[in-house]
Amino acid sequence: MAQKPSIPKGTRDFIPQEVIRRNYIFDTISSTFKKYGYLPIETPAMENLSTLLGKYGEEGDKLLFKILNSGDFLQACDSDALQNKESARILNKISEKGLRYDLTVPFARFVVQHQNELSFPFKRYQIQPVWRADRPQAGRYREFFQCDVDVIGSNSLLNEAELLQVIEEIFSRLELKVLIKINNRKILSGIAETIGQPEKITAITVAIDKLDKIGFDQVIQELRNQDISEDSIEKLKPILLLEGTNREKLATIREVLQTSPAGLLGADELERVLNLCEAANIQTPVELDLTLARGLNYYTGAILEVKSQEVSIGSICGGGRYDDLTGIFGLPGMSGVGVSFGADRIYDVLNQLDRFPKNQLSSTKVLFLNFGEKDEKYTLKVLNAVRNAGIPAEYYPDAAKLKKQMTYADKKEIPFAVFLGEDEILQEKVSLKNMHSGEQLQLTVNEMIEVLINN
Amino acid sequence: MAQKPSIPKGTRDFIPQEVIRRNYIFDTISSTFKKYGYLPIETPAMENLSTLLGKYGEEGDKLLFKILNSGDFLQACDSDALQNKESARILNKISEKGLRYDLTVPFARFVVQHQNELSFPFKRYQIQPVWRADRPQAGRYREFFQCDVDVIGSNSLLNEAELLQVIEEIFSRLELKVLIKINNRKILSGIAETIGQPEKITAITVAIDKLDKIGFDQVIQELRNQDISEDSIEKLKPILLLEGTNREKLATIREVLQTSPAGLLGADELERVLNLCEAANIQTPVELDLTLARGLNYYTGAILEVKSQEVSIGSICGGGRYDDLTGIFGLPGMSGVGVSFGADRIYDVLNQLDRFPKNQLSSTKVLFLNFGEKDEKYTLKVLNAVRNAGIPAEYYPDAAKLKKQMTYADKKEIPFAVFLGEDEILQEKVSLKNMHSGEQLQLTVNEMIEVLINN
Repeated sequence: MAQKPSIPKGTRDFIPQEVIRRNYIFDTISSTFKKYGYLPIETPAMENLSTLLGKYGEEGDKLLFKILNSGDFLQACDSDALQNKESARILNKISEKGLRYDLTVPFARFVVQHQNELSFPFKRYQIQPVWRADRPQAGRYREFFQCDVDVIGSNSLLNEAELLQVIEEIFSRLELKVLIKINNRKILSGIAETIGQPEKITAITVAIDKLDKIGFDQVIQELRNQDISEDSIEKLKPILLLEGTNREKLATIREVLQTSPAGLLGADELERVLNLCEAANIQTPVELDLTLARGLNYYTGAILEVKSQEVSIGSICGGGRYDDLTGIFGLPGMSGVGVSFGADRIYDVLNQLDRFPKNQLSSTKVLFLNFGEKDEKYTLKVLNAVRNAGIPAEYYPDAAKLKKQMTYADKKEIPFAVFLGEDEILQEKVSLKNMHSGEQLQLTVNEMIEVLINN
Repeated sequence: MAQKPSIPKGTRDFIPQEVIRRNYIFDTISSTFKKYGYLPIETPAMENLSTLLGKYGEEGDKLLFKILNSGDFLQACDSDALQNKESARILNKISEKGLRYDLTVPFARFVVQHQNELSFPFKRYQIQPVWRADRPQAGRYREFFQCDVDVIGSNSLLNEAELLQVIEEIFSRLELKVLIKINNRKILSGIAETIGQPEKITAITVAIDKLDKIGFDQVIQELRNQDISEDSIEKLKPILLLEGTNREKLATIREVLQTSPAGLLGADELERVLNLCEAANIQTPVELDLTLARGLNYYTGAILEVKSQEVSIGSICGGGRYDDLTGIFGLPGMSGVGVSFGADRIYDVLNQLDRFPKNQLSSTKVLFLNFGEKDEKYTLKVLNAVRNAGIPAEYYPDAAKLKKQMTYADKKEIPFAVFLGEDEILQEKVSLKNMHSGEQLQLTVNEMIEVLINN
């Protein structure tokens, strides 16, 4: 009995049109990365669980896909734990490897492991799939691609500005209108410091991160629930309600945070990045947004997110500066900054706006029709001449009905078809049909090649 | 305490130079596939174990990487089986997914699942990693890439000939001298039929597959061990000792197999493929080799392998025709033919012959040296002009010592460096240094762009 085939939930097959469109995104992103001097690296799909566990919080640990040890995996397990079905106690006996959850932790591991082979500042990019055992839902997959770009080993804020240029160039090449939101983690620390509750920094950033979604009143309520004093909430209000140009916002921030050295440093960094954007002639709107907090705890300086101006969807790119990503693997003091492009969301945006390049399905320029073995030799000869001219070409493999062969050309969006019958062979000519206009021409092989190159 | 980082055995990190060289191979392969009208597909890294199990033999089942179910995985297990540590009985309760073992089974599954979205004959290629829990050794990895190309839904032997052309073009573009070995599974069946022991076909092919490695006498011994009669072995000898041109070999085969319709059909197919190769002007030597059996049982017609003529290493490409790959998933009667390029071995061959393109490490054409904030504005302006001309360029992010910046350019093999000091800014000029010759020129920005484009 044949199985009815299926794939694991949350994963996807990609048919040719989808792969071609995805590659259009990946190629645009990677060629821009290269233009700015970033070099590619790749890491294995599997990492040791010791590398991954504890890096993404308790929830992240649960969402890691774990790989079962080979062989008689139960032998090493404690009999009591097995008998009591204590999955958690058994886990580290039967699994030592997990699938990569993001590209950041593998990158940190890579830098430490290969530090002597790399020259710093190291500018790298990495485009690979990651896996998370999340509950699948619309737009959220268990296997998806990340496109990460980072500079590590340099404190300079020129790097932040360069990444903003990279973002501008990629989205401009993709013909997407975007808005860049920027903030600085030091300002968030400054806020916590200023209101006298530095230990509340996480609670505060989590709450103000939600301003967009739940609104001002709810955020205030959430701050109260987190035991932030009324006095502190009062101090926070001008910052939550921040308005005006970036310069005006910076002035307000400096006033509120005047007693916090960290906060003022954050304001200085932000101002310098904005000045560099001006010097680099960045045209994309860059908006200072204090409600931008980003969940990840390893950020220490700039944080940023990119939103589409045309489609309502979460951020399509984001990142920031981290001062100690590699410390956990034994290499402290390596400051870096990077962003990650969400290829799947960018795909959805381009798709929704119908902004993928047209006529991309097939690279084949011409289909040689098949009328049976007698014409085969001449056809193969002409076909070679066409391919040697660099023109992608196919020969329909079976002498099927003409209609079937033409349907094949249509479905593959092949723009030309060639008839090579007895007449043509006798005259050493070919009949070339333009599939779009229907026009048919008798040409020599060289004339045909000319037409194919110029169309 | 910091962890000392490592990766799972049998897996690899790739530093930039390796990724760039690997991409050179992948790009050569995929652009050739496209030129012949093959379209890309991708399938998920994970497949349901029901899709994978039983497709690669008992040994293959063991070598599959299995993924542990999420959550409290032990709950569903039989208590007795746990208590007795019966790993095999527990397996299907705690794991439902596995990592892809090759690209062939996922392709068959894909064709069945998406049959209504595809037009046949369907020409696809797929370049993705696969995973096998093999014992790691030199040149054998637990994660490696396959580059598969197949036509499915056509019986025509033109497809076989086209794949030979694809092979010729790829290795010629990689500047590698290769030899193609070809055989036909029907001839092997004919042999088993002729000696009156058709059920021994697997034993016979396994034995003669080893002729190259263990020699004639050992193969005879192995045939005896497999209970092949002395009489049969006698009949096999002229075929094991087959010599001469392909045509001469075909004549001998036809004589030995005259009572086997399958064997004679195999000889006819082989002859037609060889004729088509001639018509298509294939220059790569194609050698009929009856000892070529290939282990995989799903082949039913042509089988082929490609060997380097310059480096002694196993086959670097191989494949064949299968008449019923999709039957197991419910779609019988789909004949296909395909080959798989072994990117890792091709890498080793190119590396050993030192035949990778030179100067490929960095795409960066020019490094702008950093002399501090005062020159930043002008530098960013000139840098933009250079990048807008399509020239990959970098700005060293820190005002580090000149020597450090020059070492960075050297290590990244960046061919030009730009000095923009006070003098240059005053005169609206730049100093461009050729890192190879040491020559330094004072130029206008436009003159510099000219030089960078032409060098």
